Amino acid sequence: MSGKAGSRVWFIPDGFYPSTSSGKLKSHEAICVLNPNREDAHISITLYFEDREKMTGFEAVCGAERTKHIRMDQLKDKNGNGVPMDVPYAMMVESDVEIIVQYSRMDTTQSEMALMTTIAYPL
Amino acid sequence: MSGKAGSRVWFIPDGFYPSTSSGKLKSHEAICVLNPNREDAHISITLYFEDREKMTGFEAVCGAERTKHIRMDQLKDKNGNGVPMDVPYAMMVESDVEIIVQYSRMDTTQSEMALMTTIAYPL
Amino acid sequence: MSGKAGSRVWFIPDGFYPSTSSGKLKSHEAICVLNPNREDAHISITLYFEDREKMTGFEAVCGAERTKHIRMDQLKDKNGNGVPMDVPYAMMVESDVEIIVQYSRMDTTQSEMALMTTIAYPL
Amino acid sequence: MSGKAGSRVWFIPDGFYPSTSSGKLKSHEAICVLNPNREDAHISITLYFEDREKMTGFEAVCGAERTKHIRMDQLKDKNGNGVPMDVPYAMMVESDVEIIVQYSRMDTTQSEMALMTTIAYPL
Repeated sequence: MSGKAGSRVWFIPDGFYPSTSSGKLKSHEAICVLNPNREDAHISITLYFEDREKMTGFEAVCGAERTKHIRMDQLKDKNGNGVPMDVPYAMMVESDVEIIVQYSRMDTTQSEMALMTTIAYPL
Repeated sequence: MSGKAGSRVWFIPDGFYPSTSSGKLKSHEAICVLNPNREDAHISITLYFEDREKMTGFEAVCGAERTKHIRMDQLKDKNGNGVPMDVPYAMMVESDVEIIVQYSRMDTTQSEMALMTTIAYPL
Repeated sequence: MSGKAGSRVWFIPDGFYPSTSSGKLKSHEAICVLNPNREDAHISITLYFEDREKMTGFEAVCGAERTKHIRMDQLKDKNGNGVPMDVPYAMMVESDVEIIVQYSRMDTTQSEMALMTTIAYPL
Repeated sequence: MSGKAGSRVWFIPDGFYPSTSSGKLKSHEAICVLNPNREDAHISITLYFEDREKMTGFEAVCGAERTKHIRMDQLKDKNGNGVPMDVPYAMMVESDVEIIVQYSRMDTTQSEMALMTTIAYPL
């Protein structure tokens, strides 16, 4: 695509990274990015919490005409900090080019597996 | 963010709070709010039913640049009334500043766990 | 609400009504309607299939300031025909006043329970 | 419907086709198309990956006033290539008439069954 597709800012209110898993699959969340444009997307993720300051400095790149499934359990900021476990949080995803964002969670805490997904909310 | 993000009114047609759970995790629903703005969000929730009058008076606050995951099984109105169990209901979420709302349900009634989520519908 | 909320036409592409269930909970789908307005909503549902003519004549009412969770396994047209089982189908939901529509499915075919949901797509 | 409903371009960032299933139901994804218009919809699907060139040439037809649930595990391009398994991917769905698109996944990898769904994101 040469035109503009999607949005530069997306919101995901329901984040949760459980410390417990069962079976061989680990509980995890992913911010799934599609960049159908001809330029790379440089992505910044901000985390919001219920009772502490927001965290910034989480970065990712999604190449031109590529997808990137950003695993929240593998994401680190510049100081090596990861996403806190077992607390409710929310995400803002910002990009320098228009992208499309979907959020999915696989939870293997108690069930063998539960899945949920939604397109994120664009600005 | 200093600009306006989201909406002041959100709708969630499919609410259900089951009285039964299995395993150690309780069946529950959450209205997940993200307030990326620099002002606190004062939130009012209205519940709609199939065959009785709507219920008002459920309140919550989501701080500036914070998230709030409102557990429907813990929410009480000013008179101490909670969300009725085992009946279909729907929700309207109103805020004095723009917010983003996602609805999620964890059901452990019969399964060990089932999950579902969707971004709510903005006015 | 005295203003207009939602849309008069909503689409749900992924319908499926499985004939098999396990456990005590029956596999089912629901079109969940929220009518926050002060007038009743008179609702017509059209079903679309892969290889046969569309079916019309499915009706429901959602009262003013009420919700209605329309169970697809219980819905009948004027001639007593129900939703066909075990074939892919899609839905169009039309109303004479603005409503909000969410679609949910509980599947107990093979799992003890799996859930999915999404806000429908408005015209 | 004689008017225009939906969009001609839809995006789905989170695709994944697992090679493992349990029980009698196979893990699969579906692009569920609803074409409420009076003309057939000729559909092209483009797949995006994390570290290889996009794939084009996947085609489908959804008749006038019909639905089509495109099973991604059965889709082949003109050369007989199918959707790669066990890698993250994303989808763009293009049509010559307005359609509505919903994406659903049934995963039976580890659980007996997990489901997720979302309306896709329209251009």
